[in-house]
Amino acid sequence: MAVQKITLFTDQPLRLVFGGQLDNIDVVYQTYGTLNREKNNAILLCHALTGDAEPYSDEPNRAGWWQQFMGHNLAFDTSKYFFICSNVLGGCKGTTGPASINPHTGKPFGSQFPAVTVQDIVRVQKALINYLGIEHLHAVIGGSFGGMQATQWAIDYPDFMDNVINLCSSLTFSAEAIGFNHVMRQAIINDPNFNGGDYYEGEPPEKGLAIARMLGMLTYRTDIQLAKAFGRATKAETNYWGDYFQVESYLSYQGQKFLDRFDANSYLHLLRALDLYDPALGFDNLKNALERIKARYTLIAVTNDQLFKINDLHKSKTALEQAGVKLQYYEFASDYGHDAFLVDYDAFEAKILSGIESSIGQEK
Amino acid sequence: MAVQKITLFTDQPLRLVFGGQLDNIDVVYQTYGTLNREKNNAILLCHALTGDAEPYSDEPNRAGWWQQFMGHNLAFDTSKYFFICSNVLGGCKGTTGPASINPHTGKPFGSQFPAVTVQDIVRVQKALINYLGIEHLHAVIGGSFGGMQATQWAIDYPDFMDNVINLCSSLTFSAEAIGFNHVMRQAIINDPNFNGGDYYEGEPPEKGLAIARMLGMLTYRTDIQLAKAFGRATKAETNYWGDYFQVESYLSYQGQKFLDRFDANSYLHLLRALDLYDPALGFDNLKNALERIKARYTLIAVTNDQLFKINDLHKSKTALEQAGVKLQYYEFASDYGHDAFLVDYDAFEAKILSGIESSIGQEK
Repeated sequence: MAVQKITLFTDQPLRLVFGGQLDNIDVVYQTYGTLNREKNNAILLCHALTGDAEPYSDEPNRAGWWQQFMGHNLAFDTSKYFFICSNVLGGCKGTTGPASINPHTGKPFGSQFPAVTVQDIVRVQKALINYLGIEHLHAVIGGSFGGMQATQWAIDYPDFMDNVINLCSSLTFSAEAIGFNHVMRQAIINDPNFNGGDYYEGEPPEKGLAIARMLGMLTYRTDIQLAKAFGRATKAETNYWGDYFQVESYLSYQGQKFLDRFDANSYLHLLRALDLYDPALGFDNLKNALERIKARYTLIAVTNDQLFKINDLHKSKTALEQAGVKLQYYEFASDYGHDAFLVDYDAFEAKILSGIESSIGQEK
Repeated sequence: MAVQKITLFTDQPLRLVFGGQLDNIDVVYQTYGTLNREKNNAILLCHALTGDAEPYSDEPNRAGWWQQFMGHNLAFDTSKYFFICSNVLGGCKGTTGPASINPHTGKPFGSQFPAVTVQDIVRVQKALINYLGIEHLHAVIGGSFGGMQATQWAIDYPDFMDNVINLCSSLTFSAEAIGFNHVMRQAIINDPNFNGGDYYEGEPPEKGLAIARMLGMLTYRTDIQLAKAFGRATKAETNYWGDYFQVESYLSYQGQKFLDRFDANSYLHLLRALDLYDPALGFDNLKNALERIKARYTLIAVTNDQLFKINDLHKSKTALEQAGVKLQYYEFASDYGHDAFLVDYDAFEAKILSGIESSIGQEK
């Protein structure tokens, strides 16, 4: 189905957790499969940092970010479930974000775009689900940054879903991961074109954004995968200070390709939302927040994930267990590291299915 | 003893492995302890990427980079051995590098400084050792980039030393590690002040260099150490796009501090020397190169080193064994990751001592 756009928060603005508000929020979304008569087969898919509302595409030569996971008899079975996916608040793929026109000024928000949190993103998703007339979700599912959204759904709307699946994501981002985000942010902010975020009338901070993306890519994969793919091979025509090795050429290509599809301000905002995400926000402590969860919660960890390290996944597992959450936990190694949840279908299929299927008819 | 400077290659230039040549090379070095009458107690210490000729300082309020490793009855026993340490070719701590005045133009080399390799660095060190009248080294020892130098010494001058100790370094740099270096380099090159490397008459590319250093720091430590030191603590006065979390403040501080002591061009050159290092250079294959080694070779690996990953250390171990090198191998975990060889003295003491002591009187 084609991408659709609606405008929400037209009557009342969304008051943001970190201050400020937004109204007339555009939300771009896509659906797959058919909502059944009982309206109990809807599943919300939450995208990761640089994803969009299109996990699957049936156009030729075009693929969504979960293309190989979705379809008849696959982990996300479109003949059985009705899937909804929307671009996040603060993004740049159709939903209101820093590059959008501020309806109150007629100019792009740029530096004036307010800080958004996972909690705000989830409130916009909930408004979309309300708009679609869906009163209960069979599951909320996401990987990485999407896993944080899924967790927050279970805390904020505990009666609204049967299942939550969180892939490759811990409850909070680690000091090390915040450090990588800090380096990426400073690369963008220090780009001579950044202009405090108000670059929409001039050149965008492309070099800074490409550098940030290259660093991101390194945290998404593993040394083993890069060794297999590139090793120490050099390019036929090498450039001593540029792309001398194949792995450099690959990273440079990824950095350049990213410029076509992502806005630097959106990247900054969503990186910060990753850092800041804390399920305990607004609660006395983490346990109080997690105790609200009624859904079955499936947590799937990759032991050699270099962004969400396994130590943090273990801490998350313990915290969920201590809060009495009905937890299903899996862990396994994948050469793809953090990106496994996007590319290593075989490793995830059965685990996702067990997270989606296990509770049908049991939990309500 | 105070830092000393000499000028080498005054008669004949040093022809560099990747092309070009350098003459009248200044070399800064420092010695510790006393050379015995037999001149058989000399140990060469090779510094890591951003090190210098001063592993130890006896001035108050000043510490060398191996301060806690050196002294009477310590791993590097200054009452027993005569230690020599020099700043590497291409560095910026006194030995000729890109910021030095080119004697042929009277201006800083800048962009005209030629590519230097570990092989070139070792040839300059050998010229220093010759100058000092030392005909045999008891050991050559280095960590990280210094470990690569120690390895090359054993290949190029196999009869010249009894022992080699390589701490936290594999025989070659991995694709992933080259990737991190690529990101660091591009951060410097894209700094608006870089000017192709000829920035000595203007402002240096400080922001780019600070970003590079921050990323380097992340690869030198581990998620566990950063979680213990900073966790998710925020600053009392936070800056949403700057230092919001303590770990960001720490990284920013490290980035700034680095500007006082390092030149961006030197950093670029030495990063590239790390990438390019290949013991097989000039030989038919790696085995042929390693078969030249006659010294006892001690390789000490940290299993959770995030720069030199344990998989690569295992490959190095196998390659050394297959070439018939007399190998002593140790591995252990340290929260400090790659930086362990600079800070985790207790973990290294006995292993270094076994690498230095085991062969006294046996190998010659």
